[in-house]
Parts: sequence; C-alpha cells; structure tokens
Amino acid sequence: MSQVRIERDLMGEKEIPQDAYYGIQTARAIENFPITGIPPHRELIRAFAYVKKAAAMANSDVGGLNKKIANAIVKASDEIIEGKLIDQFVVDSIQGGAGTSFNMNANEVIANRAIELLGGNKGDYMMVSPNTHVNMAQSTNDTFPTAIHIACLHLARGLTSSLEQLITAMEVKSNEFDQVIKMGRTHLQDAVPIRLGQEFGAYKRVLSRDLNRIKNSVDHLYEINMGATAVGTGLNAMPEYITLVAKYLAEHTNMPFKNAEDLVDATQNTDAYTELSSALKILAINLSKIANDLRLMSSGPLTGINEINLPPRQAGSSIMPGKVNPVMAEVINQIAFQVIGNDHTISLASEAGQLELNVMEPVLVFNLLQSLSILQNGMKVFKDFCIEGITANIDRCRELVEHSVGIITAINPHVGYEVAARIAKEAIQTKRPVREICIEKGILSEEELNVILDPNEMTAPGIAGANLIFGK
Amino acid sequence: MSQVRIERDLMGEKEIPQDAYYGIQTARAIENFPITGIPPHRELIRAFAYVKKAAAMANSDVGGLNKKIANAIVKASDEIIEGKLIDQFVVDSIQGGAGTSFNMNANEVIANRAIELLGGNKGDYMMVSPNTHVNMAQSTNDTFPTAIHIACLHLARGLTSSLEQLITAMEVKSNEFDQVIKMGRTHLQDAVPIRLGQEFGAYKRVLSRDLNRIKNSVDHLYEINMGATAVGTGLNAMPEYITLVAKYLAEHTNMPFKNAEDLVDATQNTDAYTELSSALKILAINLSKIANDLRLMSSGPLTGINEINLPPRQAGSSIMPGKVNPVMAEVINQIAFQVIGNDHTISLASEAGQLELNVMEPVLVFNLLQSLSILQNGMKVFKDFCIEGITANIDRCRELVEHSVGIITAINPHVGYEVAARIAKEAIQTKRPVREICIEKGILSEEELNVILDPNEMTAPGIAGANLIFGK
Amino acid sequence: MSQVRIERDLMGEKEIPQDAYYGIQTARAIENFPITGIPPHRELIRAFAYVKKAAAMANSDVGGLNKKIANAIVKASDEIIEGKLIDQFVVDSIQGGAGTSFNMNANEVIANRAIELLGGNKGDYMMVSPNTHVNMAQSTNDTFPTAIHIACLHLARGLTSSLEQLITAMEVKSNEFDQVIKMGRTHLQDAVPIRLGQEFGAYKRVLSRDLNRIKNSVDHLYEINMGATAVGTGLNAMPEYITLVAKYLAEHTNMPFKNAEDLVDATQNTDAYTELSSALKILAINLSKIANDLRLMSSGPLTGINEINLPPRQAGSSIMPGKVNPVMAEVINQIAFQVIGNDHTISLASEAGQLELNVMEPVLVFNLLQSLSILQNGMKVFKDFCIEGITANIDRCRELVEHSVGIITAINPHVGYEVAARIAKEAIQTKRPVREICIEKGILSEEELNVILDPNEMTAPGIAGANLIFGK
Amino acid sequence: MSQVRIERDLMGEKEIPQDAYYGIQTARAIENFPITGIPPHRELIRAFAYVKKAAAMANSDVGGLNKKIANAIVKASDEIIEGKLIDQFVVDSIQGGAGTSFNMNANEVIANRAIELLGGNKGDYMMVSPNTHVNMAQSTNDTFPTAIHIACLHLARGLTSSLEQLITAMEVKSNEFDQVIKMGRTHLQDAVPIRLGQEFGAYKRVLSRDLNRIKNSVDHLYEINMGATAVGTGLNAMPEYITLVAKYLAEHTNMPFKNAEDLVDATQNTDAYTELSSALKILAINLSKIANDLRLMSSGPLTGINEINLPPRQAGSSIMPGKVNPVMAEVINQIAFQVIGNDHTISLASEAGQLELNVMEPVLVFNLLQSLSILQNGMKVFKDFCIEGITANIDRCRELVEHSVGIITAINPHVGYEVAARIAKEAIQTKRPVREICIEKGILSEEELNVILDPNEMTAPGIAGANLIFGK
Repeated sequence: MSQVRIERDLMGEKEIPQDAYYGIQTARAIENFPITGIPPHRELIRAFAYVKKAAAMANSDVGGLNKKIANAIVKASDEIIEGKLIDQFVVDSIQGGAGTSFNMNANEVIANRAIELLGGNKGDYMMVSPNTHVNMAQSTNDTFPTAIHIACLHLARGLTSSLEQLITAMEVKSNEFDQVIKMGRTHLQDAVPIRLGQEFGAYKRVLSRDLNRIKNSVDHLYEINMGATAVGTGLNAMPEYITLVAKYLAEHTNMPFKNAEDLVDATQNTDAYTELSSALKILAINLSKIANDLRLMSSGPLTGINEINLPPRQAGSSIMPGKVNPVMAEVINQIAFQVIGNDHTISLASEAGQLELNVMEPVLVFNLLQSLSILQNGMKVFKDFCIEGITANIDRCRELVEHSVGIITAINPHVGYEVAARIAKEAIQTKRPVREICIEKGILSEEELNVILDPNEMTAPGIAGANLIFGK
Repeated sequence: MSQVRIERDLMGEKEIPQDAYYGIQTARAIENFPITGIPPHRELIRAFAYVKKAAAMANSDVGGLNKKIANAIVKASDEIIEGKLIDQFVVDSIQGGAGTSFNMNANEVIANRAIELLGGNKGDYMMVSPNTHVNMAQSTNDTFPTAIHIACLHLARGLTSSLEQLITAMEVKSNEFDQVIKMGRTHLQDAVPIRLGQEFGAYKRVLSRDLNRIKNSVDHLYEINMGATAVGTGLNAMPEYITLVAKYLAEHTNMPFKNAEDLVDATQNTDAYTELSSALKILAINLSKIANDLRLMSSGPLTGINEINLPPRQAGSSIMPGKVNPVMAEVINQIAFQVIGNDHTISLASEAGQLELNVMEPVLVFNLLQSLSILQNGMKVFKDFCIEGITANIDRCRELVEHSVGIITAINPHVGYEVAARIAKEAIQTKRPVREICIEKGILSEEELNVILDPNEMTAPGIAGANLIFGK
Repeated sequence: MSQVRIERDLMGEKEIPQDAYYGIQTARAIENFPITGIPPHRELIRAFAYVKKAAAMANSDVGGLNKKIANAIVKASDEIIEGKLIDQFVVDSIQGGAGTSFNMNANEVIANRAIELLGGNKGDYMMVSPNTHVNMAQSTNDTFPTAIHIACLHLARGLTSSLEQLITAMEVKSNEFDQVIKMGRTHLQDAVPIRLGQEFGAYKRVLSRDLNRIKNSVDHLYEINMGATAVGTGLNAMPEYITLVAKYLAEHTNMPFKNAEDLVDATQNTDAYTELSSALKILAINLSKIANDLRLMSSGPLTGINEINLPPRQAGSSIMPGKVNPVMAEVINQIAFQVIGNDHTISLASEAGQLELNVMEPVLVFNLLQSLSILQNGMKVFKDFCIEGITANIDRCRELVEHSVGIITAINPHVGYEVAARIAKEAIQTKRPVREICIEKGILSEEELNVILDPNEMTAPGIAGANLIFGK
Repeated sequence: MSQVRIERDLMGEKEIPQDAYYGIQTARAIENFPITGIPPHRELIRAFAYVKKAAAMANSDVGGLNKKIANAIVKASDEIIEGKLIDQFVVDSIQGGAGTSFNMNANEVIANRAIELLGGNKGDYMMVSPNTHVNMAQSTNDTFPTAIHIACLHLARGLTSSLEQLITAMEVKSNEFDQVIKMGRTHLQDAVPIRLGQEFGAYKRVLSRDLNRIKNSVDHLYEINMGATAVGTGLNAMPEYITLVAKYLAEHTNMPFKNAEDLVDATQNTDAYTELSSALKILAINLSKIANDLRLMSSGPLTGINEINLPPRQAGSSIMPGKVNPVMAEVINQIAFQVIGNDHTISLASEAGQLELNVMEPVLVFNLLQSLSILQNGMKVFKDFCIEGITANIDRCRELVEHSVGIITAINPHVGYEVAARIAKEAIQTKRPVREICIEKGILSEEELNVILDPNEMTAPGIAGANLIFGK
C-alpha cells in the first residue's frame, strides 16, 4: 500500500501520494482533466521554472520574499531547468482554467522541492507556500503567457536552425543541378525548359522568406507581461519587482526579454501566438508544395516522370519486391497538414478570448508547441534523409526536353509562328522530337539548333540564339 | 432630381426613393451594412416570399388578419416567387441583426406591393403594415431560418440532380474503359495493374455515397420553426396558426414541411446547416481528389503520364501554340477549396450562437447557399465539358504496364520470390520489360505470360493463372 | 551494455535490441520518423492484432498458412488484444509510407512473439516471417484501413455511451428546471421569458441529433477492404480468404463487419473518415455553444448574469480568495477547438489521396482517434463534474424577468401597442419593473398580471391570458 | 435580333455579340465557367490595365511593338483605369486555367478598344492582336500575379486607412473613458477593477500591431515577376523590357514596384498572398474579440452587464417595441468569420501549387480581394456607427465595482489575508458591498477606503494605499 499525505484547500481535503512533489491543486486538476493523456511540453515546464526563479529573485530584491526561501525556490527551479522532476508535471495539456493548473502544478512542485532543500517534509507549506511564496506577486495570467513565450522562443531556436540547414541543403542542390536542363511544367502539362537547379533555387528562396517570417514573429515574444497579475493592471505588484523580473529572465535565459508597454493589452491579447502560428502555417504550406513537387518528379520509376531519385529509406511494400516510396516527402506533407490544422485550433482559441483574459490558452499553447516541435523534427529528417541524397536522372531529363513540343517556343522567333505551329502539330501527332523534324525538313541546322536549344539560353531571360536572327 | 418619400421609425425619419418598394428599415440596413456588395441569394428572396404567403394565409384562417389584406400579401408574394421585384432586395449578404434586415426588407417590399395592389401609394402603411400585417405572429427568428430551409432545399434539388448526372457519366466511362488495363500507382510509384474502368467505378461509388449523404442531410431541413416567434416559446403565436403555416408551406412548395417538435431547440441550434455543409465539404474533397487524378493521368502530353485525354476546352497559353490545360478539372479543385473554406466560416458562425439565438446566421447562409450553387454549377460543366469527353490512350496504358516492374507481383506465385526479385532488379536497371526478360531467360513462355498477365486476371481477386501452378 | 541482434532487409543490416519484439523495418521507421513522440493509439494497436488474427485463421482455412504457424500468430495477437506488448509499438503517429510502418511493426512484433511461442528466438524469421506469414495475402493498404475501422468503432462505442449519459443528464436538468422562469436573451439583449428547463431541453435535443449523426456515420465503418491487397484489385488474395477474414473479424470483435462491395473504391477513398470526423466536429460545435451558454448564465457571481451555479471544482485564482471559474465548461470549449482543428487536418489529408491510395492516412487517423478519445473523456467529466451539479438561482432568475422590459410583449395584446410602448419606455428609463408601473397606473390589476405573467403561459405558444381579453 | 461577329481560334469559331469588346477566348471562358456569377473585382480589372499599359510602353521602347499600336493600347488601358469598360470583364471569379481567361479577357477588351481608337472595327485583330500585341512578351503567369499585387496594394491602402481611423477612434475612447472604473472580469467571473479606458487602450494597441503586420506583409507585394513569361525563366522576354516594365508600373501607380530577384521563385510561390491573408485573419480574430467584448459589456439593458451603450442603429425586433441590438458589432463578427474562412481557402489554394506554377490562383485572389474589401468596409462602419458613439454607464460601472468582492484584493495588504477572506465570504453571502461591511465592522474608515479603493490606485501597478500601511 502506497503512502499518502493529506492536503487541504478551500474545497476540502485530498490524499496525495507521499512521494509526489505536486499537491492538492494539481490533484484536483488530474481528476478534472483526464482528456488527452499528454502532459505539458517539456519546454513549457522548464519555462515555468525560469519564471518562478526570476520572480523569487525579484521578490527577494524588493524585500517581499525572505532570502532563504527565495534561494530554495531558485535551487528547486534550477533543478527543473536541468531536466529533473519533469515527471511531476502531470496536468493534462488540455485543461480548463486558463492554465491555473499548469501554474499551480509548478508552484506546488517547486514549493515541495524547496521545502526538502530547506530540510522539511513535502506538504509542510508553512515553510514554503506554493501561493504565498512561489507565486508571490504573480498570477496565472502573467506567468503562463510568459512561460509560453519562453518555451516558444526555445523551440523556435531549434526550428530556425533546422530550417537554416534545410535552406543550405536546397542551395547545395541548386548548385549541383545548375546544368541539369529539364522540362518545365505548368498545369502538369509540358511547358518550356527549365534547369533543375532553378527549381531547387526557388525552394531555397521561399524557405528563406519563411525563415525571415518566423524570425520576425518570434521577436514579438520578447515582450512579457510579468507584473500584470490578474487583469494587467498590476494590482499588488510593485513597479521595481516588475522591472527586475524581466531583467532576471533575460539574464537567465540569455534572451532579450523586456516588460510589455501595456500590461492590460499584453494580458488579454494573443496575437503574438496567432502571428507565430501563421508563420508556421505558411512554412508548412511551402514545405508541402515542395514535398509534392519531389513526389511528382520522382514518380515512377518506370511509369512516371522519374526525373529525380529520392534516397530509399525503407521497404515500401510487403507485397512487391523492390518498391520504394517517397516516405520522407510524405511525412512532410502530413506534418504540414497537422500544422495547418493546429493553426485552425489556435485561431479558434485566440478568437475566444473575452474581456481581460483568454482562458483558452492551454489548447492554444498545446498546438503551438506541437507545431514548433514537429516542424523542427520533420525538417531535420527531411534534409538528412531526403534532400541531401537526391540525385538527378540527367539523361532522362534531357530526353524529355528533346521529345517535348514545348521547346518550340524557343524556336519560334527563328522560324516564325506559322512554321512553328506546323512543326508543333507534327511533333505531337508523331511523338517525334521537334529537333529531329526541324533537321529533317531543313528548317534549321543541327549547329543552329545546338545554339537555340542551349540549356542556359533557353532557361534565362532573352531570345535564345538572338544573334542567329540578327546574323541573317 | 429623383423623387423621394419620407418614412419614420423609432429612430427618426429618412428619405426613401419614391419608386422603391423597400422602406425605412431596409434603408437603414443599406447604410449600416455596405460590406460585400452582394445581394441576398435569389432563392433566399423567393423563400421569404413563400414564408410570408403561408403566414398571411394562416393568419387569415385563424382570424388574425383581414382577408383583403391577406389576399394582397399573397399576391405580392406570388409575384416575388415568380421572379419579380428581386431587385428590391438590396440588403447586403453579410449584415448584423440575425437577419432582421432580410426579414424587414421582405416585409416592406411585400407591404408596399400589397398596398399598390389594393390601390394605395407606396409608404401608406396604414393600409398594409410591414410589421403588423406582413410580419404578423412572426419574428426574424422563425421566418429567417424557415426561409433558409426552403432556399437550401430548392438549391439542393438542383445539386443532387447535377450530382446524379455526374454519377451516371462516371458509370458510362467505367463501362467504356472496363477493358483498358493500366498501371496502378500508390505513392505515385508503380504498383500493380488496374483497369481504367475500375478507377472510374471507384469515382462513381464515392460520389454515390456523397449523394446519399447530401440527401440524408437535406431531410432534416423539412422541420421548420415557424411559430417560434422570438425565442422559440411561441409567445403570441396561436397554436392553430403554427400548424396551418407549415401545412400551407408544404402545399405551396410541394415539399413535406412540418413543425419542429421543439421550437426552442429549433430556434437556437444550427446543426442542420453544419450537417449539410459538412456533406457538401465531403463531396468537395472527393471531387477534388478525382480532379487531381484526372490531371495526373492526363499529364503530358509528351513528358507526363498521358494515359487519358481530357477534352480541350480553350487555348491554354498565349505563348506556346498547342498548349491545352485541364481547365475543367482545375475549376473543380477551386470550387472544392471554396466550399471547404465556406464550411469553415459556417462552423465558426454556428459555434457563435448564444443562448436563444444564433445571430451569425446571415454569414452562415451566405456561405451555405454559395456552396450549394457553385457545386451544382461546377458539376454540370465538369460532366458536360470534361468527364463525358474523356478518351483513353489504350496503347500507352498497355505499354506502361508492360514496361513496369509492378507486374512482377503477378508472376511471383509462378516463379517464386527469389527469381521474381532477380527479374525485378534487372528490369529496373535495364528498363527492359519484365515480360521480355522472362521469355529471354526461358523462365516462362509467351503463352504462359499471356495467361498470367491477362488483364482481367491481374485486376481481380485471386492468383492470376492459378491453374498453371496446379497444372504443373 | 545492452544486447543486440542483427537483422537484414533489402537496404542492409541493422542492430536491434535483443529484447525488442519489433524488427528491422520498425527500426528504420524509428530512425525516419522522430516527429511527434506519440506512439500509435492503443486501440489502433489492438485493432491490428484483430486483423492479423483473423487473417491468419482465414489463410489457414484456405490452406495458405501452416496451422502451427497460424496458431502461434493467433496466440500472439490475442496477447496484444489483451493489452500485452503494447510498449513494442514504437513507430511515430505521424509517418510517411501510408502506414506501412504501423503494419510492419505489428507484423514484426507478432512474428517474434509467435516465434517465442513456438520455442524459437526472436529474429528467427525462418520460423515465422513478418511478411510471408503474418502479412500473408495482406497489404498495408487493406490492413491499415481495416484496423482504423476497428479502432474507430471501439472508441465510438465509448463515445456514444458518454454522449448518451450526457443527454440523460441534460434531460434530468430539463425536468428539474422546468418551472424556473428566466429571461430569454437574443443578441445578448433582453428578449422574452423562457423556462430554464426549456434551455436544457434544447441542449438535450441537439445532442440527441449528434448521437444519431455519429451512429449513422459509424455504420459505414463495418465495410472493410481486407483482400484488396495493394490497389483494391485483390491480386494474390483468394476469394475464399476474403470472405473468411471478414467473417472471423466479425466473430472476434462482435461487430457486423462485411466485405466492401468494391475493393478498389474502398482502398482509395477516405470519406468514411471525413464523415465521422464531420459528425464529431458538429458535436464539438454544439458542445462549445452549450459551454458558452453555461459560462454566460453563471457569470458573476456579483457583477454578471448569475442565473445558475456551476459546481466549484478547483480554486480559480492564486490572488483572489474565493474566486471559482467554470473550468469544466472551459475544457469543453478547448476540446471542441481541438476537434474542429483536427477535422481540418483530416480534410486536408483526405483531399490529398492520389489514384489508388491515400498515403496521408497516418496523420488522418492520428487526429480522428484523438478526436474520438478527447470527446469521450471530456463529455464524461463535463457530465460528472459540471452538468449534474448545476443549480439554479431561482429568485435571481425571477427578479430579472420582473425587472425586464421584455415581458411587455405578453402584456401587449391586453393593453394595445401604444400603451405598451409607453410603459416600456418608462420602465427602461426608470429601471422600475413593468409590473409595478402597470399596477401604479391602474392599467392592469395585480390579479390580472399574475395571470398574464404566469410563467407557463408566457413560455408556451399562444397569447398569455387570452381569456382575460375575451372575458372583457 | 442582336448583331454578332464571328471569331476563330485553334478550336473553331464562335459568335460574339457585335458590341462586345471581349472576344472568342473570353466567350469560351463564359461557357466553361458559369460558377459564382461574380465578375472579377474592379481593382483586379484596373490592375490588368496598368500591366498592359506598362508592357506596351516597355515593348515599344525596346523596339518590339509599333509605336502607333502601343499608343492605342496605352489609351485603351487608361480608359479602363479610369473606370470605363468594366462591364466588359465578364469571366467568372472562379475559373480553371490559372487566370488565363482573366488575362485574355483583358487582352481582348484592350485590343478591340485599341482597334476602335485606330479607326478599325472590333474583331479586326490584324490591326491590334490580343496575343501578339497586347500580350507581347507576357504570359498569364507573370501578368496575373503582377495584377494581383497591384490590386491588393490598392485595396490595402484603403484598408490601412480604415484601420488607422479605427485605431484613432479607440484612442479617443480610451482617453474619454480613462477615469471610468469598472469591474474587470476573467473567465466571465468577477476579478479586480480596471478602467474602461484601459480596455479601449488595449483594443487600440492590438489593432496597431495589426496595422504593422498588414503594412509589413504588403511590402512584399512590390516585387513583381513581369518578364517571367511561362515558367519564370524569362524565355523570349528581353532583359531591357523586364527592367522597363517595372519602372513604368512604378511610375503609373506611384508605388515602388521592382523586379523580383528570382523570377522562377516569384512565378511558382504564393507565400506573399498567404502572408497577407494571415495578417488579415489575425486582424479579423482581434476585431471579433473586440466585438464580442462590446456585446458583452453592452448586454442588457436590464438583465445583462450594461456597462456601456452602443449607439442604436436600427430597430432590433418586429415583436418587441424598444429592442435594439448590437448590429454593428455583429457584422464585424461575421466579417471576421468570412475572412477566417477565406484564409482557409487561400491556404488550400496555395498548397496546391505544382512545379512551375500555382494554377489555383483565381480562387485564391477571389478570396483575398474579398477579405481586403470587406474588412475595409466593415471597419469603416464599425468606427462611424459603433465605436465613436459608445457611451459609458458610469454609475452602473462604479456600483458593480463596489458591490463586487473582487476589490477585496486591494484591501488585502491592509487587513491581512484572514480578515479579508472573512469579509469576502460575508459579502458574497449577503450581497452587501465590501466597502459597507468594512466600515460597519470598523475595520477601515471611509477616508481610508477612499484612498485604498481609489480607481487610479487600484488600476495601476503597486499596492493601493501603500502609504497607509507604512504610515501606521
């Protein structure tokens, strides 16, 4: 039989497992919210510890908190920052109460650990009280948003690093494939030639804009609302404390945190999150488009387009030997769908804010942190296991260009629209290369065609072989 | 200078164009809601006329409304049902007030037309009052939902008819292409053979389920909340009137309308609309998937898959002669995206209901009627201009199957997994047909391969050429 | 140092922890997909075991699978169904490859456990092969959808049970509050009286329709595509096997599974999931509206509407003693937002199906199973901890009605519109009750007002106190 | 009988109304796309005219286009810019073909008008050809995106102007209500006091961030892809022309347009639109939250919160005299829902881009331009007809604060937590003001309470009446 201790609050008493660092308010939340079974994100837990540590130091500095208690809170918080006690954060990711249960879970775990550090027994809240001491001059309504900011910023660092590496990988491929001429397609229909390197160059560019968007969004998270207390008016929070807590947070996290200019605004509005989520959604959309392109270009191997090869990562089928599927591109599509859906949930939660507070923040932050994590994770393996290993089927690419009718567009200025149209028609009907027909009919010589259909000429602004026209 | 008349309400007076059938409340709404510039859907206008006509007859029957006035209201309503006065419905599709402006626009137009029919001048509301007479025993909160139901049902008739014809067209193609064997693809990678007719058969089946879903959803719309008045309690609406108004509506529209069992429920909840919108969204998703498949299979003509041809409908490019794009499939994708987005707006509006009423119904119905209309319109031209004219490139389909390695799966049971794997490897590396390699190596004879690779055998349950194994 | 064994596949070899029941294909998936950190839903794992068990028995019956091996597969599967080996299912919920990694994880765990049961060592696949034996006549493309169906059906049972209990709780409250007259509100503005019981009655009704919608949606899941193999053509699956596997599944799960009529259709289309998800989304929307209503009606206690009390569940604030928040309603809102967002992801995944398969099913099923779970969990605590404990502030409700001007609507037929309008104006300006003004001015007697303002009269169809009019 | 002319293209001939400025390609599009019945947005039409004008001048400069023809094209374009011929733009807003029908409609109308200006008859394309001359060195794939940019920028100007005025109106109200102390609410439950001016200040601030977000997003639209031609490679577009066309566009529109750095990227990616749409969505979310707050605070008048009054704009009900609803707030909610749904459609369209082009741009731009328009329109009337006329019920606000228990939080530091808790309990049970109980019990004097409960003290950081504590 496991040992328990009894804790009490306004609503009565409750048995708490003796070895649990959490207390009665956490226990009530466990009972109230058995929803997803998913605990708070690790980075959110660590972020709460940063908040409690900074608040304890600021409260101690302004004389509100006994230095011994403050030190114990700081030490307990440091342990959590280092990754200890994470299993004591047990409230569900989706919960009512605007995150009060997250905050109280943190307050209780830190209080009990601080009590131990001071030589007491868990539950002896006269030594260190979750509310009076750990939560001093704080409210869920300022600590939770601040913790969200810290957690997002930590995860965003990893995300932007993954994205930067993916951009580099795209650039490497863009250079590697610079001379691989291939058919350009619009509407999935043959258009005019393009270089494979140009396509990867476009991927690099759009992802670079995503990087900027995310970095810009993230910048707004450095403004925090510590000191807002309940509704942003700062009731019962001393101005010196408010300044100090931001200063300490900045020092400890090495991030440029500062007090929000208007704490009422910062407490009720969640546009910093919707902006970040939107930036992530746009990244997701762009990644999904790239994944789709790669799956199209690698389709086949024998009955598809087959211009490129994605590195094989695992057997694709239990029925057909040799089948390999574009699994790393497919997982990117799915991550994208998840992130887009998460953005939807985040939008709903953001719109549901009322008056002085948005009580829907738990589900909002659950989705936001998940989006940050899975995009980072996905981009890492996408780069490592897909992009870096892509090879081009150069001969196949060239062959498709030469068999296409699209190159007629480059020949157009040299032979006139009418002749070009006749060649195009014959090429489509006979499935013979435009080049071959031109030579056969004596319309252009092989030498001339080599100039006109020069990959670099055809795939850059200007009229390919313009000098041939003027030379005539 | 245009003539005006002066009308008055609780908030003051306003000039109304002398020839306008609408009155001061409509004029206020014009001023308040210059949002989309899009007037109410024609079917919504007609639906309001049905409602007002039935209410006038019921009110007359129970003795509340003077018969002469009732007759004039009925006649005016009939004119609108026939398509007259539609241009007098001028309030914006997106408006505050839960549709009161729609209702008052209808009340005013009908009152003024009734006044004319009785020999009076527009604006002489002592003869026929928009509120007292046309709106008798009614509220926006019962007439607007009822009108939405009628409008949806009318549009749904057209939609299901279009869908039925599209299903038939898919079935015709399924039969036509029953013997066209082609490569099946999963993950856009070569899999095992399938018949083109089977693919169109699958399209037919999924669309048939969509038809059922939509029909089932629509059935809930026959329950109307006339008599609910303000909040569903029926305050000031006589029970006999409530029964009669449903009876008349059913007679006039030839649709089996009946009173909702619980008027409070029927007045505040909008799940009948979200259910219909969901059914439309699922149809949209399925249509989009089909459109994507058609665009993939018709990709090329020379550098894509090119298994089928979509009928050319318009020049695809101003630069390249001969380019034709799958425009009818592309418009289906876009209609689908619109309908999916509309469903999102509808969900937001539905969730925003509060207590006794959902005041967000105007934007909800704007999107719902648009979804119904554009799906009907889109499916009609998709069938006429795309599906019915699709042709198969039978030789190309067969050639791709024979060059694919996927057919090795059918050979597998005959030669064993090890031998099959060796053949597969050689086929992929050399790009030579599996059939050719088998014959060359003396593994199977041409006759045996004809049996094993028989299209019908390979594309139906069972081990193709099983008798060959047992015969050995 | 932990022990390992070496396994091999087409791509090379890999070290597997000696005590792991999974094998090389699972190990590759672990490496490829470190995305969410969330393993497959427990019910999905159990569902795969049901599938493998039924397939083994069917394969054994048609002579394809050695009885001893079949028995071992059945025993291993039974252990998983009982809840063992769940920790061996380690592939990520979001993964590329259309669920092949889920399927292979199941094949490998069952094979290794079967090998043990037959006296062998894990990894000795000559005894029982994950592919040849456990996956015999199967493909990911038929086993995964079938497992999804089973998992959804199991979860839907729990969900509908929770929903039925919630409906009952609403009905109980509807009866309990049948005589509690309160102010009805539209646009959040005072309208006319309603009974609190009518409001809970409306909640009961809309949830009852949700129950029907979900049950209807779920019915489509009994059609399974076992035997479809790769693309639905059933290549290499004997017709007898196809029939038997459905029969066994039905027996083992006690659910009426049957073969889909068209396996090609059933393999590529995902409308059964989008339909179920839509039904869940509509339930979520309706629950969110109810939660919003409860939060509005219980707002206060001193500066809000305060008509009802939600049971206190936990301290609401760390700053203000006595604050209690509507946390159980808030968690319902958030679950709703999650389910609506999940539906969005599901729609995106469904639309992304291509040709013979929808490879985006892993993310689809991840979201669908989550929606089913969190709705069930949420509704249970919502009922237990919120609905059942709601009490009405009867005096407050009555007082608000009597102070409101909205009741003028009931007095209207008795005193005429003009007099009523004057009373209304005076009541709003002086904030005195309509009843008081009427008596003071001698317009109606207290006895007459008692009849006219009788709660049951005012909140049911008809003109309240109509006999008073006719008596005059 | 109306006169017709015959026009011909690759697919055959077609009758065109003699007086139509559009031609055969437009006529085919009319037939193919009878979807929404909504023509292109007026600003999109004008934007195309800007594009064609600039292209004609650039082509003329580089010697590609005869000056006389160029001048005629310029004049025809100028007429459209001035608002003429708008009714000749008749293709549907939702269309297949990536906007080719928009482009060709513009080419044809301008060609025919130019022909007239040169003295010819409509249809005499030897004089001015829609393709050869008006579309010279252009493709739909560069002109359509460029026109979208121009149209968005024009609409964004109006939008930001409306938003700036709304921000100013919020600021005015923030100052006006600076001294109106009222109850702050979290979870819709009584919290601590706040000033009404602080709430409007928070609205001002969040909208100011929206303004910045939109302005930042819009900046990316100055990069245009003219010269990209079909796939971004610039095939057949002279470098000098590319430079000149951007220069002319900048001059004519007075906007700093410049050539995109990478035309391949700029032609296939649509993140500039998703970014703008996201910014609009966030604005919509914030506006909806504000509208919800206003509806809550103005709820009543007699049975709700009733802290503020929204200006009455129209009769709210046809049943109850005197009912006025918050219609201007409600229309903002609905505009928000529309914009959020539109963003969803835009995301779907953006994700569906493939390879060198996004063919789903028509539906994307349809939704984007609508969002821009309705937000502008809605914010204008919201400011004019709602925000500017809001008044505060100052006495009611003060009374609610004084009757609330929330102010106990300010008294807390002066009397200790235990005493405060006892007062709180008594206040809730007896519904008597905290202030009254304090005085009655002699805990604090009226003078002290005046200091402690001073609005400015209680609603700003710090301990209200701290000097009283230190003075003791």
